[in-house]
Amino acid sequence: MTSERPLFIPVILGTTRQGRMSLPAAKLVSQELGKLGGIETEFIDIAQMPLPTSDAGEAIKDAKFAASMDRADALIIVAPEYNHGYCGLLKHVLDSCLKEYIHKAVGIVGVSAGAFGGARVIENLLPVLRELGLVTIFWDVNFSTVQKVFDANGALLDSAYPRRIEKFLKELIWMAKTLRYGREHVALD
Amino acid sequence: MTSERPLFIPVILGTTRQGRMSLPAAKLVSQELGKLGGIETEFIDIAQMPLPTSDAGEAIKDAKFAASMDRADALIIVAPEYNHGYCGLLKHVLDSCLKEYIHKAVGIVGVSAGAFGGARVIENLLPVLRELGLVTIFWDVNFSTVQKVFDANGALLDSAYPRRIEKFLKELIWMAKTLRYGREHVALD
Amino acid sequence: MTSERPLFIPVILGTTRQGRMSLPAAKLVSQELGKLGGIETEFIDIAQMPLPTSDAGEAIKDAKFAASMDRADALIIVAPEYNHGYCGLLKHVLDSCLKEYIHKAVGIVGVSAGAFGGARVIENLLPVLRELGLVTIFWDVNFSTVQKVFDANGALLDSAYPRRIEKFLKELIWMAKTLRYGREHVALD
Amino acid sequence: MTSERPLFIPVILGTTRQGRMSLPAAKLVSQELGKLGGIETEFIDIAQMPLPTSDAGEAIKDAKFAASMDRADALIIVAPEYNHGYCGLLKHVLDSCLKEYIHKAVGIVGVSAGAFGGARVIENLLPVLRELGLVTIFWDVNFSTVQKVFDANGALLDSAYPRRIEKFLKELIWMAKTLRYGREHVALD
Repeated sequence: MTSERPLFIPVILGTTRQGRMSLPAAKLVSQELGKLGGIETEFIDIAQMPLPTSDAGEAIKDAKFAASMDRADALIIVAPEYNHGYCGLLKHVLDSCLKEYIHKAVGIVGVSAGAFGGARVIENLLPVLRELGLVTIFWDVNFSTVQKVFDANGALLDSAYPRRIEKFLKELIWMAKTLRYGREHVALD
Repeated sequence: MTSERPLFIPVILGTTRQGRMSLPAAKLVSQELGKLGGIETEFIDIAQMPLPTSDAGEAIKDAKFAASMDRADALIIVAPEYNHGYCGLLKHVLDSCLKEYIHKAVGIVGVSAGAFGGARVIENLLPVLRELGLVTIFWDVNFSTVQKVFDANGALLDSAYPRRIEKFLKELIWMAKTLRYGREHVALD
Repeated sequence: MTSERPLFIPVILGTTRQGRMSLPAAKLVSQELGKLGGIETEFIDIAQMPLPTSDAGEAIKDAKFAASMDRADALIIVAPEYNHGYCGLLKHVLDSCLKEYIHKAVGIVGVSAGAFGGARVIENLLPVLRELGLVTIFWDVNFSTVQKVFDANGALLDSAYPRRIEKFLKELIWMAKTLRYGREHVALD
Repeated sequence: MTSERPLFIPVILGTTRQGRMSLPAAKLVSQELGKLGGIETEFIDIAQMPLPTSDAGEAIKDAKFAASMDRADALIIVAPEYNHGYCGLLKHVLDSCLKEYIHKAVGIVGVSAGAFGGARVIENLLPVLRELGLVTIFWDVNFSTVQKVFDANGALLDSAYPRRIEKFLKELIWMAKTLRYGREHVALD
C-alpha cells in the first residue's frame, strides 16, 4: 500500500517579470489544487527567493527551496514562454537542486500572451526536467492570450479553465501516487 | 502488490537503413535484457514490418505490432541519429498506435557514427514519446562511433557497454514495475 | 548584385495521410506564392514520390526530388503535427538529400487540428533542418484547427490567412535572396 | 558590395558559475577570432553584467550590452550545458534585447564536463535564438570533458581545437557577411 500521509505538491511560479500574468494563472491552479482533498501545497514565487546570481549551480542552493523539493511528491511549474524558451531565473532556481527531484512527478502550466498557450516553452523544458530526474506528465494546462483570461485584478474571465485544470491535476496526482509507491516499495536493483 | 506475471519489454530496432550499425547495438541490449530474470522480451525490427506508406496515421496499424505494444510494460527504442532527428520510418511506426502506450515506461538507446552517442536524437524524441503517453526514463544508453564498438560481424569490441546497459535496464525495470502498479492499483479519479 | 534568374521555391507537402487537411493549406500557400512576381515554384507532394522504405538514407535518393532541391533557392515545408513531431515520411524524404540544401532558406507552415497551429512540430523540425544546412526563417505560418479554416472542398473560410502568408513569404524571399548572394559572391575561406 | 567596415563579432561567455571551465574555452575562441584579419570583437562575460533579477524582460536592458548587440554582425555564444539546458542567467541576459538581434548570425560553442560536447544545450538553444531573429549556423564547436582540454591555468592541452574553431569561424564569418549584405541591400518588401 502507498503511505498514508497526504501528497505534498508545491506550485512554482516561474518568473520574476513585472506585471507577470502568470501570477493569476498560478494562483488559480493553486486554488483548484486546494479544493481537492488529501493534498498539501505551497506557493513558491521565485521572485521572493534570495538566490544570488554570483553562481549558477548547486552552490547557490536555498535551504528552504531544497527542503520543499525534498519533501515534494510532485511539482507544478507555471512557466511563461519568453522567446520560445523558459524564464532564465526559473532555470537558475531549478538548477540549484538535483537529488531532491528524483522519481517525482511534474506537470507544466504554459502561459503566453499569444495564441499557443506556452506550447513551446513546454517542449523546451522537457529535456531539462527529465535530466533533473523528474517525470513530466502528458497533460498540460495552456493559458493562451492570458491577458484575456484574467482581468486586471486577477479575476478569472474564462470559465473553461477550472475543468481543464482538474483533468491535469488528476493525472498529476495519479503519477504522484504511482511514483511514491515506486520510491517506497520498488527496489532499484 | 504488483502482479505476478513477468514484465514484457520489447526492443524496437528503429531503422531500416542498409548496413545499419544499430542492429548489433539492439542485439546487445536485447541479450543483456535476456540475462535478467523475470522479463519477457521480443525483438521488433521495423524493417520487417509490413506498414504501408499510403497513410501516416493509425489507419496503417499493424495488428501484431499493436498487440505487442498493448501487452508491453515498457519499451526499449534503439534510435540511430539521422541529421539530429529520428529515423522517419521509426516515427511512421510509432504513430500507428496511441492508447496502447499510455502509462508505460520507455528507455532510449541512442546510436551514432559520431562522438555524441545519439544525444540529439534522444532530445528530439522526448516530446513525441511524451505525447504518446510513454514515460521516458532519465538513463539512456549512448553508442558513440558505433562502427568501432562492434566488428563487422557484430561482435562487441568495447567491454564497457554491458555495465552501462545494466544500469539503464535497472532503471527501466524500476519504472516499468512502478507504472504497472499504478495502472493496476491507482485510480485516475 | 544578385543573379537575374527568378528565385525557385518549391512547396513540399509533408504528409501522406489520407484526408490530410495539409493539402488545402499547402495549395493556399502555393497559390499566394504564385501571385508574387519573379518566383518559380513547384508543388512536391511526398505521397506522389516513389521512395522505397527498404533504406533510410541517401541511397534511396529520388533523382527528381534531388534535382529540385539542388535548383531551389528556398523551400516551404508544410508540416502537420503528429504526436508533437514531424510526419515520419517527410523525414524519410528529407534525409535522402544533404549537399543540395546547404545555405538555402526554409520556411515552415505548421498545421494542426488543435489550437496551437503546429507550433510543436516546428520546434521539433528546427534541429533537423539546421543539420541539413538549411536556414530556418523566424516567421512561420500556423494553421490552427485547420478543419475549420477550409471547407470540405478545400475552399478558404478564414480570410486572415492570405495576409499572414504574405508576411511569411516576404521574409522567406528576403532570406532566399540574401543567401543566394552569399552562395554566389561570398567566399568561404 | 558589402560595406567596408570590419565585422563586429562579440563573444558571450554564457555562465556565472564559480570555477567555470567555459572561461578558458571562451578565451580560446576569442583568441582564434582575433587572429583573423578584418574582425573586431569584444569579450562579454555575463558574470560582469549588472542585470538585476527583479524583472525578466526588456525592462532590465543593460545599455552597454544592447549597444554591443546593436552593433554586432554576428555573435558567438559560449554555452555550458546545465541539466541538458542553457544557463538561466544567459537566457536572462539574452531576453533583455530583441530588435538588436534581427538578421544577424550566431554560432554556438557547447561546453560540457561529459563526453557529448554540450550537444544538448545547443539543441535546447535553437528555438530561442530563432525567435530572437538570429540565424544559427550549422557548424558548432563542442568542448567535451572540458576539464581535460585545459589545465588549471587555462592552458590548452588538446591541439585539435584550434583547427575546429577555425572551421566554425569561417562559416560564421560567411554567414555574417552574407546577412550584412542582406540587411544593407535586400529590401524586405
